[in-house]
Amino acid sequence: MAVLCKPAIAVPEYVITQDETLELARRLHKDHAQLRLVLRLIEHTGVLTRRLIQPIDKVLKHPGLDARSTVYEQESKARVPSVVRRALDEAELEPQQIDLIVYVSCTGFMMPSLTAWLINTMGFRTDTRQMPIAQLGCAAGGAAINRAHDFCTAYPDANVLVVACEFCSLCYQPTDLGVGSLLSNGLFGDAIAAAVVRGRGGTGVSLERNGSYLIPHTEDWISYAVRSTGFHFQLDKRVPGTMEPLAPALRELALQHEWDAGKLDFYLVHAGGPRILDDLSRFLDVPPEAFRFSRATLTEYGNIASAVVLDALARMFDEGCAGDGHRGLLAGFGPGITAEIALGSWTTDS
Amino acid sequence: MAVLCKPAIAVPEYVITQDETLELARRLHKDHAQLRLVLRLIEHTGVLTRRLIQPIDKVLKHPGLDARSTVYEQESKARVPSVVRRALDEAELEPQQIDLIVYVSCTGFMMPSLTAWLINTMGFRTDTRQMPIAQLGCAAGGAAINRAHDFCTAYPDANVLVVACEFCSLCYQPTDLGVGSLLSNGLFGDAIAAAVVRGRGGTGVSLERNGSYLIPHTEDWISYAVRSTGFHFQLDKRVPGTMEPLAPALRELALQHEWDAGKLDFYLVHAGGPRILDDLSRFLDVPPEAFRFSRATLTEYGNIASAVVLDALARMFDEGCAGDGHRGLLAGFGPGITAEIALGSWTTDS
Repeated sequence: MAVLCKPAIAVPEYVITQDETLELARRLHKDHAQLRLVLRLIEHTGVLTRRLIQPIDKVLKHPGLDARSTVYEQESKARVPSVVRRALDEAELEPQQIDLIVYVSCTGFMMPSLTAWLINTMGFRTDTRQMPIAQLGCAAGGAAINRAHDFCTAYPDANVLVVACEFCSLCYQPTDLGVGSLLSNGLFGDAIAAAVVRGRGGTGVSLERNGSYLIPHTEDWISYAVRSTGFHFQLDKRVPGTMEPLAPALRELALQHEWDAGKLDFYLVHAGGPRILDDLSRFLDVPPEAFRFSRATLTEYGNIASAVVLDALARMFDEGCAGDGHRGLLAGFGPGITAEIALGSWTTDS
Repeated sequence: MAVLCKPAIAVPEYVITQDETLELARRLHKDHAQLRLVLRLIEHTGVLTRRLIQPIDKVLKHPGLDARSTVYEQESKARVPSVVRRALDEAELEPQQIDLIVYVSCTGFMMPSLTAWLINTMGFRTDTRQMPIAQLGCAAGGAAINRAHDFCTAYPDANVLVVACEFCSLCYQPTDLGVGSLLSNGLFGDAIAAAVVRGRGGTGVSLERNGSYLIPHTEDWISYAVRSTGFHFQLDKRVPGTMEPLAPALRELALQHEWDAGKLDFYLVHAGGPRILDDLSRFLDVPPEAFRFSRATLTEYGNIASAVVLDALARMFDEGCAGDGHRGLLAGFGPGITAEIALGSWTTDS
């Protein structure tokens, strides 16, 4: 039995409000033909505040990819260890008890990934497996949990540390002026999340089944162009409508588990934008309040990519509403278009 | 029982010999203070020919990261499917029977990775799991096999497709003039490898145990600097000596399996360079011929990164020397410094 324990979350210290974002958009793009549409879209995100690793003036100046890579490395080394430490504490484990580190991050690139440095500096065993994933974008939070689940299924005594480190502001591209880019500039935020999947014991979501689903022929709907200026996020305007084809995949996986996806006790899904949550509510026939954890993440932090599902779970822990045996669904959505879906039940370590 | 079936390999059509490489080094770096050392190091690699996806004149001209990213995508889409098709044929499986695709490649970056496109174009199921790994470098071939093994341990009926796509020539950096860089320019080659790990049935290496080992405090010995010109490979001169600390880790894993790492029937290891093979022979007390498959890969193709271990395995299949129950070790070595090690026995599908 693999149990996803309480995640630790850290958001950085620089705050930008929606009003400030709108003001910036008006100032920077005052002659943009679709400015009014962009402003309306940003207002519609419902993102009220976001947190950034650097002051906004610094974010807006692209210093070149060399410098950004340095910032990514420095900031991840400065910020990740304390989050990992807290996640281990929540799971009541020491670094030496971790068998695999799944490190997901799509907003910066290092080789070796941060896993090697974490092992060297935080006291993980030298035989800790490393699974760095950079190419699953916002779906990677779900993927990390699912691969951790698989690993504990293979090795029932194993414990897996999952880390999601997303500095979306380091992918800001001042020369990208399409509506999708300008919307993204008002949507994404920075955050770090970590959680442990315990093979035995632990309080949290007991992971029971997982699955993946790729919407056919949508691989260019969410993508990066990899350029001399770094990753350029490319968002197709059809993306907000993807819950219509994804909801049946969620239903199908639940059905395989003899569950009804519309009648679960909790939902922890990627909050890519407000329509994703509205549509899921509609297509799964679930009250909007069911998505309150994801919506709170979106409202307070923006879309924090692979960290969303872990942040939503942390909020559910904080609310204290989950009881033993409550059934739930967790899902990350990202490029592919891929959904990484997990089904589990709340369990309290006795 | 997870069986690693016969890999399919493809090397591209443009050939460069060691003589041509040396001639180029003499011409391009005629005033380099350490030219003689560089030439001697390149001669010592024992790499006689390498295969490239583009003519050498094109390789040598850096067209910018934007253009290189386009080449990476085009060439991988043009070259990977036929290798995947052959790997499936070797395993006697259809795309619909694959449950997970592990796609490893450290020489180009796409998001989504090629997995999404492969699913869309080759008839894989929409619920195929995707595990793209870009940050384990040359260790990723071993890691891919090991994660496939773990997945089949968790789901004994599953089948996993492993793909290693390495276009090392797309990381050539004309402005990197350190000895390590100039040596690398004469060492790395391009190749694609694919293989299936079958949960049930299949002829090949029955995977029994796997493990990872990180040499403490060596995370900057093999690394990428991520710059506006792309990935810059940084190689510490201590890397060729890493078999001394790694050999005990190989021994230890074998011991856990009640095997003697020095007395196995076959060895399929990453051929990063000739000293790795010489030293392993020495530190494991194994005759040099035991590494003939890896050495042949190095001689004919150069260091083809994560594809080496699969190519070495394909050569062992071709030699036809393995018999039922023969015990062997497979290992990838790469940044971290990380070793990804597998132990398995030859099995013939009855």
